[in-house]
Amino acid sequence: MTEFRSVAAATGEPTGPAFAVHGPAEVDAACAAAADAFDVYRATDRETRATFLEAIATEILGIGDELIEAAMLESGLPRARLEGERGRTVGQLRMFADVVRKGAWQQLRIDPAMPDRQPLPRPDLRLRMIPLGPVAVFGASNFPLAFSTAGGDTASALAAGCPVVVKGHPAHPRTGELVAAAIARAVAACGLPSGVFGHLVGPSNDLGAALVQDARIAAVGFTGSRAGGLALVRLAQARPVPIPVYAEMSSINPVLLLPEALKARGAALGTAFVGSLTMGAGQFCTNPGLVLAIEGEGLDAFLAAATEAVGGAPAQTMLTGGIGQAYRSGVAALESAPGVDKLAEGPSGGAMQGHAALFRTTAQAFLAEKALGHEVFGASSIVVICRNVRELETVLRSLEGQLTVTLHMDESDQAMAATLLPALEIKAGRILANGWPTGVEVCHAMVHGGPFPATSDPRTTSVGSLAIDRFLRPVSYQNLSSAVLPPELRDDARGDGAPRLIDGVLTL
Amino acid sequence: MTEFRSVAAATGEPTGPAFAVHGPAEVDAACAAAADAFDVYRATDRETRATFLEAIATEILGIGDELIEAAMLESGLPRARLEGERGRTVGQLRMFADVVRKGAWQQLRIDPAMPDRQPLPRPDLRLRMIPLGPVAVFGASNFPLAFSTAGGDTASALAAGCPVVVKGHPAHPRTGELVAAAIARAVAACGLPSGVFGHLVGPSNDLGAALVQDARIAAVGFTGSRAGGLALVRLAQARPVPIPVYAEMSSINPVLLLPEALKARGAALGTAFVGSLTMGAGQFCTNPGLVLAIEGEGLDAFLAAATEAVGGAPAQTMLTGGIGQAYRSGVAALESAPGVDKLAEGPSGGAMQGHAALFRTTAQAFLAEKALGHEVFGASSIVVICRNVRELETVLRSLEGQLTVTLHMDESDQAMAATLLPALEIKAGRILANGWPTGVEVCHAMVHGGPFPATSDPRTTSVGSLAIDRFLRPVSYQNLSSAVLPPELRDDARGDGAPRLIDGVLTL
Repeated sequence: MTEFRSVAAATGEPTGPAFAVHGPAEVDAACAAAADAFDVYRATDRETRATFLEAIATEILGIGDELIEAAMLESGLPRARLEGERGRTVGQLRMFADVVRKGAWQQLRIDPAMPDRQPLPRPDLRLRMIPLGPVAVFGASNFPLAFSTAGGDTASALAAGCPVVVKGHPAHPRTGELVAAAIARAVAACGLPSGVFGHLVGPSNDLGAALVQDARIAAVGFTGSRAGGLALVRLAQARPVPIPVYAEMSSINPVLLLPEALKARGAALGTAFVGSLTMGAGQFCTNPGLVLAIEGEGLDAFLAAATEAVGGAPAQTMLTGGIGQAYRSGVAALESAPGVDKLAEGPSGGAMQGHAALFRTTAQAFLAEKALGHEVFGASSIVVICRNVRELETVLRSLEGQLTVTLHMDESDQAMAATLLPALEIKAGRILANGWPTGVEVCHAMVHGGPFPATSDPRTTSVGSLAIDRFLRPVSYQNLSSAVLPPELRDDARGDGAPRLIDGVLTL
Repeated sequence: MTEFRSVAAATGEPTGPAFAVHGPAEVDAACAAAADAFDVYRATDRETRATFLEAIATEILGIGDELIEAAMLESGLPRARLEGERGRTVGQLRMFADVVRKGAWQQLRIDPAMPDRQPLPRPDLRLRMIPLGPVAVFGASNFPLAFSTAGGDTASALAAGCPVVVKGHPAHPRTGELVAAAIARAVAACGLPSGVFGHLVGPSNDLGAALVQDARIAAVGFTGSRAGGLALVRLAQARPVPIPVYAEMSSINPVLLLPEALKARGAALGTAFVGSLTMGAGQFCTNPGLVLAIEGEGLDAFLAAATEAVGGAPAQTMLTGGIGQAYRSGVAALESAPGVDKLAEGPSGGAMQGHAALFRTTAQAFLAEKALGHEVFGASSIVVICRNVRELETVLRSLEGQLTVTLHMDESDQAMAATLLPALEIKAGRILANGWPTGVEVCHAMVHGGPFPATSDPRTTSVGSLAIDRFLRPVSYQNLSSAVLPPELRDDARGDGAPRLIDGVLTL
């Protein structure tokens, strides 16, 4: 195959012009250009790099409605959602511009020489973070803008000083092409080497495999399925020089209904829960696929309200035919699982649509069958009824790693919440109270990450400003003269606004 | 085998009492105790944890000369070296106590709520780093104190709030036992659960394999051979839940002699180089196993002085019989390698001793044979003669990742050094000028790490205060009430001395 076309999510039919299928030659060219651009790009000063990130944001906005319409056609997501996603994409580029300017990411450290120290003098030692090298970014199907071509991985890698080669998701080639062209315009406008950004597209997994195996790629960012992420990790580990893979893969985002909150507002929680569950046809990494509730007052009201809301939730277009099929299989598996009852399903829609589904089981049945804890990507969730908080904690501790855990709680649930907190921290990257996990704020204190298999590397986040750290490594300079030292480590660079740790003391 | 004994490095003969060989039952018990201790230990406040680290230091000093004598007998290293190493071990425990108290490692971040933000309110988000969980530490043969039972990995993991299970190196069981008992006394004196520290010994690799495979272990620190490190990485990756392995493995630490420095002091450099090469029988991770020099004035003087110094360097006891054998095989391979000339070797000693060796080759021959760039652990080095700086850079870029690269340079070499710097940064974790790589300062700006295969993870260091970051992961708390939040993230904790990033602004 040498060409492929967009598929309209709503109809499953090919649409629009053809795109060239990229292969080994294009991978080689993109990686060569990225490697060539690396030394120039990483040597740019903070202002140049920040201006570049802002220029990408401006260019994306400059595409106008054509971008929103392409994304609507290809993803089936509604206009308001995609306009919001564009705002988020632009916002995170601007946030990283601000982070780059402030300079804390460089982690500058200076331990001055101590020529008279006994028994041995101490040399002058200075440390900074440098970028890892060219980064491969895999666009995600479910966020055609914010987790794709110019999404969080791209923004944070570029902020760190790494050239980026994007492997665009084949579900939205036109959207990706528009954004890639916007980035290329920003590269040119800022006078940067064109290899700072590369864009590869094609429908086969071989393309991504070739990219991860290229010796010039130094790290990988990925958001997608567990199978896909693990395949990339294996390829990256098998290289002669293994590289880090930041794969955000699989999470069912347990929601814990604590007794007093359930008692006070069971019905309202049931309705609001289904609002989160069905948002974007349930195609969020942070979709609440599991509810843990303790038997007691308010549970029936919760179940009744949730059942009613699911029953009335209209079917929605899924991102791709493949995702729709996988969703229907996942739901069918729950329908036939022992000890699991179907509480409700929404009215079914067209062949390309998915409808919500809600199940109920007991803690005992859930603990007996590992598969009930696996992600079903879409608007399906399972309520696990626990007899008491001890059983709830047992279920919690049996779970795999998660992106989020949510608590619904009242003031009189605080003691129970505090007792559960250590278990929550060990299971998840983000713990939230009295909200829903599907909103992921882009800010400094956000962690969109978590223990395996939520991600392949729980030491990081893929959303928020801390994400820049994924693409950096420390280098120490000992007794280098000022003329040879990187500019930010010279004595005369103090006062440039970046914090420094001087002899162990943090200095602004 | 149920028991094993120390081997005196100088004679190769068993000595002293027998030690029980630990196996699966002891691994299980140590990991269970560590897992049980985790929640209590990680909840200790900064002062308690700092005091504990200082108590370990005091207990180690309290062992007195018995520790030095045991280490001398088992390692064959001289008294002055081991006394210095003890000072370093105690010093790094105290440094981490200071780091824990200052609190920057927590990376506290607070993004206050914005209830009126449009189109959506922003929730309150707060972030801190939490420890990964119980850490397995593998003691190194070549630093029986500073990289072993209470070495840098143990100190940084304990500082991070992780219980530690040490797999002691079988080359120094008595030394390890003394230090382990000192740590256990500190654990008891500080009222901590005994599982905070565990100690396993035995001569077989199966012991370490079982430890890394235990589901309760969350990360691994290792210093040793490339084969050993890679085996642990494979085991860790094959687990149902993969975990990070920080393996510091293999480096030949190139020393670059730039033309003006060589011209000014070729002979002095030759003598000083051999001082670094033969220190500790060459058994340092940072031993200078490769010299890159450009043909020109001073090179002959360098070679003559180095040849003379190696010829006069007395044979030294190697750490173990196995290390001695591997060293002799490595030297023999260089002797028979095409295009490689032996410049000198030191007078040979007893069966347990190794003697220095120095080789010379051309850039062309070096580039033709990958094996010439492999580590020979011991006092052997190879001088590669380059015709010009371009050839030198080609050799440099052909190398695998390194812990260090050293420049010997004068003021008029600065332009050349600056040109080479990007290549040096990509190859190594530490770049030093006009010194020797064998001194590794324990401080804030030190990086003892570097690209593969110097380490399995170039994003970190195993020496210096930044090493604590290896054992931490971020967790985000959204809209949690003060009563449930971890203490350091509550509003009333401000002023506790730890820096905070508040709405993106670093605040002391």
